[in-house]
Amino acid sequence: MSQQVKFTLGADEYPHTWYNIVADLPGGAAPALNPATGEPLTPDQMAATMPAELIEQELSTEREFEIPGAVRELYARWRPTPLFRARALEKALETPARLYYKYEGTSPTGSHKPNTALAQAYYHKLAGKRGLVTETGAGQWGTAISMAAQLFGMDALVFMVKVSYEQKPYRRAFMQTYGARCIASPSIETAAGRAVLAEDPDSPGSLGIATSEALAAAAADPTLGYTVGSALNHVLAHQTVIGQEAIAQMALADDYPDVVVGCAGGGSNLAGLAFPFIGEGLRGGRKARVVAVEPAACPTLTRGRIAYDFADIGRLSPLVRMHTLGHTFVPPGFHAGGLRAHGIGPLITRCLEENVMEAIAVAQTDCFAAGVQFARTEGILPAPESTHAVLGAVREALRCREEGVSRSILFGLSGHGHFDLAAYQQYFAGELTDESLSDEALERSLAALPELVNV
Amino acid sequence: MSQQVKFTLGADEYPHTWYNIVADLPGGAAPALNPATGEPLTPDQMAATMPAELIEQELSTEREFEIPGAVRELYARWRPTPLFRARALEKALETPARLYYKYEGTSPTGSHKPNTALAQAYYHKLAGKRGLVTETGAGQWGTAISMAAQLFGMDALVFMVKVSYEQKPYRRAFMQTYGARCIASPSIETAAGRAVLAEDPDSPGSLGIATSEALAAAAADPTLGYTVGSALNHVLAHQTVIGQEAIAQMALADDYPDVVVGCAGGGSNLAGLAFPFIGEGLRGGRKARVVAVEPAACPTLTRGRIAYDFADIGRLSPLVRMHTLGHTFVPPGFHAGGLRAHGIGPLITRCLEENVMEAIAVAQTDCFAAGVQFARTEGILPAPESTHAVLGAVREALRCREEGVSRSILFGLSGHGHFDLAAYQQYFAGELTDESLSDEALERSLAALPELVNV
Repeated sequence: MSQQVKFTLGADEYPHTWYNIVADLPGGAAPALNPATGEPLTPDQMAATMPAELIEQELSTEREFEIPGAVRELYARWRPTPLFRARALEKALETPARLYYKYEGTSPTGSHKPNTALAQAYYHKLAGKRGLVTETGAGQWGTAISMAAQLFGMDALVFMVKVSYEQKPYRRAFMQTYGARCIASPSIETAAGRAVLAEDPDSPGSLGIATSEALAAAAADPTLGYTVGSALNHVLAHQTVIGQEAIAQMALADDYPDVVVGCAGGGSNLAGLAFPFIGEGLRGGRKARVVAVEPAACPTLTRGRIAYDFADIGRLSPLVRMHTLGHTFVPPGFHAGGLRAHGIGPLITRCLEENVMEAIAVAQTDCFAAGVQFARTEGILPAPESTHAVLGAVREALRCREEGVSRSILFGLSGHGHFDLAAYQQYFAGELTDESLSDEALERSLAALPELVNV
Repeated sequence: MSQQVKFTLGADEYPHTWYNIVADLPGGAAPALNPATGEPLTPDQMAATMPAELIEQELSTEREFEIPGAVRELYARWRPTPLFRARALEKALETPARLYYKYEGTSPTGSHKPNTALAQAYYHKLAGKRGLVTETGAGQWGTAISMAAQLFGMDALVFMVKVSYEQKPYRRAFMQTYGARCIASPSIETAAGRAVLAEDPDSPGSLGIATSEALAAAAADPTLGYTVGSALNHVLAHQTVIGQEAIAQMALADDYPDVVVGCAGGGSNLAGLAFPFIGEGLRGGRKARVVAVEPAACPTLTRGRIAYDFADIGRLSPLVRMHTLGHTFVPPGFHAGGLRAHGIGPLITRCLEENVMEAIAVAQTDCFAAGVQFARTEGILPAPESTHAVLGAVREALRCREEGVSRSILFGLSGHGHFDLAAYQQYFAGELTDESLSDEALERSLAALPELVNV
């Protein structure tokens, strides 16, 4: 094998279609339910917040959705993204493993989020919407939607979890640069926000509350399209450009991964990288082990329950069947803001049930240690979310060393950490803690699951 | 012409050599002088701070220097960088001009600085140095040296201008992530720093002071190699990978620039992009107008004097012949930290003298306005330094509209602005001012030029 470290595709060699794993997954997807009736949500009911094309993708069992030309043109500004052989990290780990990473940090906002933001903006624009509304935690998703809205000539309204809004003024400024309006949540702008503030005027907010506010704002203003940063089937499908490119790039490297590792929050980066590989295996092709790495402080896959639950604390969303810690769950403070959701994409849950994916939970200080080692060898500073995948891959590589086996390990580097240096600073100062979720806290939040829970 | 927006080269299609404009520039380069004697610096004298290979490059009249394999391998992690046709910006400006930009923000540290940081680290390593020492203003250069040192297994010591050190803790954390030691300057670690502190314990520092400290530290410890972020001939040569790639990419676009625009501080991004184009013209090939855009608050090229001057306030550097505002000059506060030097690369000065480059000075609020327009059309948030080039290109494009002429305009986008959102925030809050340099202040700092001045 050559000493090549970067595997690039030509400017037009990125996928023409998004991949829908539902077509290949035995048992397919579990339908979302109308919480009022317990019956599967109908396309008509979904039409309140989603344009027809996204509903079609959300419910489809087709294997591929064509990427619209206007979206491909915008993808072309930074796609295909590079895939790297991590030779320097291999050397530092003294591992016989072959380590590869697929890097999404070269997008204009520094993460993989624009892959679906642009798609959703396009379909909402097509449906005649004037603007987009969404919630954001750490701000990666809000920034991506702000950019996508602006590039399609739309307004953007972003409800940002208040504690992040205050801690991350630069994220707000970034959204403002794209012309978006960013509001601290809970806010007085929606009934959902006012209800929270009435109980607790000093509420720091949560992703669940911000989601309630964004849904309420979309319900109140039919010119606004509600957009979703992760979890839903169509969102995960949009991200599969990552894995499809990676398959072609691994072929250029004359290799194929034995193990694919991704960080797990809502599931969009993980699915984006892993689903195309899982699909190959499900269709009788090459098989890779897939490992989801989640924070021990928000252990949805490793300690959550599979249940029908709401996406938001205000119970405005449909019920979706997923691994969940309960929609009232608010994780302790930790720095991977993109991995703080109480639930995960239903198709990720289905993959675990079908034994085509496994999950581990890791401590954040271990993640930062892996992130620093990665920066010092490969040169790229990973986002805190991405450090989870780095750590998962490092552990696999060390196992290869112990076993004296050379496996090929591919992991997803979802974004750069240029916005997250405050977290690295705290890590170096020894100020980061590893809070695990107590059994009592978990029981409490699971007790708040809706009646329909054990499905 | 197609609707293509991104022009990429293959993973191995970046230059094998750095370009040295001295070979083509009539009259060549002016030698640096020993301040003690007023005689040209000899290679022996230069050897105190520079490895043999860099001295050779600094003094060479050869047209090309081979890029060492180890440096090319590291370049390969992000080079070739993309060149874009700015079709969305063209549309917003309603200009018949064809706008292109060469983007260096996809490097691991987010700017063009690693192009020379890796080269300098390599040669110092080869010369047996244990570590690297340098000064940094805003932090882009310090970060690049920190990464380069780490990737070559060396230590890094960075003297950071104190006011930036305090205002930009994230930059410090980034350097620390690469294992560097970053010190606020003036510091008690060097005689130069102690002298400043004795006079003014609250000194906010300046690039000139930090340079004195870095030079002093290198002089005190022979295991440390002193590195330079801009201005010197070899540094500018290392950056020419940018322009050489751009020539190949413009050919892919089936176009050639009538105008090349770059931001001007020490001159490294400007030279990196423009020198290969200027060289073609000087050798009788195609000619492009080249426009340097500098801040009105630090107007080295438009209001400085051509003189032999020091690079640092402590007068530890050799004397170099350049446009200078005087080595005691401290610019008023503005946000393009990379454009705050009192002098510029001597070869930039020579280009102005030979009429192959022109210069304009612009106000920072106009730059930020152009940067926001760029982000809202092209999606990429430019660094404050880069916004100067954006503004210069926008003005050229608007002139095309007035004149009804379609020209091809290429500008350099030296880096992303993900570290600079505090500045954008101040811009949106209306808190940025446009301080111009008063004639009195300019006279004062020019009066401090060394005796040898009018050469």
